[in-house]
Amino acid sequence: MPSISQKGRLMPESPIRKLVPYAENAKKRGTKVFHLNIGQPDIKTPQVALDAVKNNSIETLSYARSEGSEIYRTKLTKYYANHNININADNIIATTGGSEALLFTICSITDPGDEIIIPEPFYANYNGFSTASGVKVVPVISKIEDNFALPKIEDFEKLITSKTKAILICNPGNPTGYLYSEKEIEKLKQIVLKHDLFLIADEVYREFAYDGLNHTSVLSLEGLEQNAIVIDSVSKRYSMCGARIGCIVSKNETFIKTAIKFAQARLSPPTYALIASEAALDTPQSYFDDVKAEYVERRNTLVSELQKIEGVKVANPKGAFYCVAELPVDDTDDFAQWLLEKFHHNKETVMVAPASGFYSTEGEGKNQIRMAYVLKIEDLIRSVEILSAALKQYNS
Amino acid sequence: MPSISQKGRLMPESPIRKLVPYAENAKKRGTKVFHLNIGQPDIKTPQVALDAVKNNSIETLSYARSEGSEIYRTKLTKYYANHNININADNIIATTGGSEALLFTICSITDPGDEIIIPEPFYANYNGFSTASGVKVVPVISKIEDNFALPKIEDFEKLITSKTKAILICNPGNPTGYLYSEKEIEKLKQIVLKHDLFLIADEVYREFAYDGLNHTSVLSLEGLEQNAIVIDSVSKRYSMCGARIGCIVSKNETFIKTAIKFAQARLSPPTYALIASEAALDTPQSYFDDVKAEYVERRNTLVSELQKIEGVKVANPKGAFYCVAELPVDDTDDFAQWLLEKFHHNKETVMVAPASGFYSTEGEGKNQIRMAYVLKIEDLIRSVEILSAALKQYNS
Repeated sequence: MPSISQKGRLMPESPIRKLVPYAENAKKRGTKVFHLNIGQPDIKTPQVALDAVKNNSIETLSYARSEGSEIYRTKLTKYYANHNININADNIIATTGGSEALLFTICSITDPGDEIIIPEPFYANYNGFSTASGVKVVPVISKIEDNFALPKIEDFEKLITSKTKAILICNPGNPTGYLYSEKEIEKLKQIVLKHDLFLIADEVYREFAYDGLNHTSVLSLEGLEQNAIVIDSVSKRYSMCGARIGCIVSKNETFIKTAIKFAQARLSPPTYALIASEAALDTPQSYFDDVKAEYVERRNTLVSELQKIEGVKVANPKGAFYCVAELPVDDTDDFAQWLLEKFHHNKETVMVAPASGFYSTEGEGKNQIRMAYVLKIEDLIRSVEILSAALKQYNS
Repeated sequence: MPSISQKGRLMPESPIRKLVPYAENAKKRGTKVFHLNIGQPDIKTPQVALDAVKNNSIETLSYARSEGSEIYRTKLTKYYANHNININADNIIATTGGSEALLFTICSITDPGDEIIIPEPFYANYNGFSTASGVKVVPVISKIEDNFALPKIEDFEKLITSKTKAILICNPGNPTGYLYSEKEIEKLKQIVLKHDLFLIADEVYREFAYDGLNHTSVLSLEGLEQNAIVIDSVSKRYSMCGARIGCIVSKNETFIKTAIKFAQARLSPPTYALIASEAALDTPQSYFDDVKAEYVERRNTLVSELQKIEGVKVANPKGAFYCVAELPVDDTDDFAQWLLEKFHHNKETVMVAPASGFYSTEGEGKNQIRMAYVLKIEDLIRSVEILSAALKQYNS
């Protein structure tokens, strides 16, 4: 029998995926499962985007342009200008989701054996795309005690080698919910300029910045033009995860020209989704105001309810819609499975993401979980009630 | 300035892409351009697929399952059963186009430095995905004199090393239009079994087999279960190139489990396109009959018209919708550019794909072009008329 690749063997499984069969079995037993485990919002997609697809007049569903149409990219520049990011259409490549934006970026700037420094905990699939490209993720630990703020710049400095090609951040962060300040982005600017590295910022949660705080894009900093690469997506912004449209944005022409070659090889992003994404740019501001107000209320509820449980420590998220909590258990992988396999509270239980999957340092995050506050308030309150009862039973 | 990757520098540009600016300029000068250069059919997408998207009732555009829904994959098994391919839903991974199916396959079975043997001329993007994965394409030349039939099996044998992981074929072939016989597939079976290789077959043109000939899938051969991998796509079958839905099909469980990890990392295929693709499975047989009749007529016209030109040699395609022709010129890259840049015949010209981009052996195919017969009969006749006039002028 022919053998699979080493890369294929090393490729990590999704940290949540292994729990899915347990969740399915729980449902088969008649247990209701509250899903705090994934970043799939329940928020409705803007009507203007849904309508554009329903009203399309396509007769032959043709390829789109590899980098997205001139019209779409030009419309995007206006969106970015509203967010203090001044670019032109040629600085943008439309991609099949933020996922592909990450993949093309990694392919364009790294060769096998190269290294990317990422503050951990980080979005688990950064590991996947790095493994697929033979690239080593070098983690720099951020702490729940600091709300997962940017690690000290000396901690980055220590990890930089001749193999280091980039620092990758997620801002606001998945899974941390941390929103980097302008000062922190400035510090990152200094270090990437000093060492001639790319600074890749996954800014797909740009709109989800709370408590009056402003999001600072790496593209808004002067002097960082040749180093800054933004990964973006319509998935969270418009609750359009299933569209699979994202983009790469950079003012570095050589980088963009290189990434376009990878885009050409896969021909085009999905045409229907491009129609939805272009229309979504006309979403009224009231939509975002409503969504933000909803998430702030959810966050406040989730955090305050969690804080009532003895032994639980919660980072206070300032953005995105995730929250990392430390639980009074030794192994949240075991606990998360137990919640689905062995536990129910009046025929209800919760599914959470064990945080170990968001760390690449072995043994880190073993007592943490990530919760996505993508459910309505009453379900969040009930979820924490279930979690509290579960912790009591699990620890007794 | 931070530098891009070696892989990024090596990544080939699309062989057609470099001609695009010349085509755009020709249009600006008021010259009509007949596009024989790309495999974007003018055929209408089945109404049942278009309607399914127009009538969707999505309120929140959510992620699809990474490998495609159970329902879609189960429906696909019926389609395959109708084509003498007996598989179950777990043998299928839905992908974002045939492109992604190829990428996941290469990632799952090769590491950097490994080799894949491909009969050339071949679909240019095989080079792109291989380069992106650090894999070496080892070409084995097929000849226009033989209609691009399978090269002698000894020619493959000579090229097999410890690094060889797979043989990749496109059947029917892009750009050759060649349809491999059952005997040829049998020969490939013997050699991959002998050397423990995967046999990857890009069968996206399965339906486009002409002259009463049958298509033989690598999945229909007994004893090849652990070695056969099929790359598939809805793009050509339903004239849905812009959907970006394809799939990987294999009975090798270890391979499928590995490829699913790559699928999970990118989350999901595009949801709207999955709706269209699932509905497209209900396309009536009459659609395919009509399309096939249309392509046969186009092929007959194109080939017979081309044969009338002195010095032109044409391979007779038995499938797909491409045709490779040898022209009485030294360098079709130059000629194709000249057609757009310097030539017009009553304000009309043609855009063709120089064949050098479909070869990886330096210098091969320099006097060949690929034409896609995706235009209506009268446009094909006019295109060859233009080509004939152009050759006279170019050679004088």
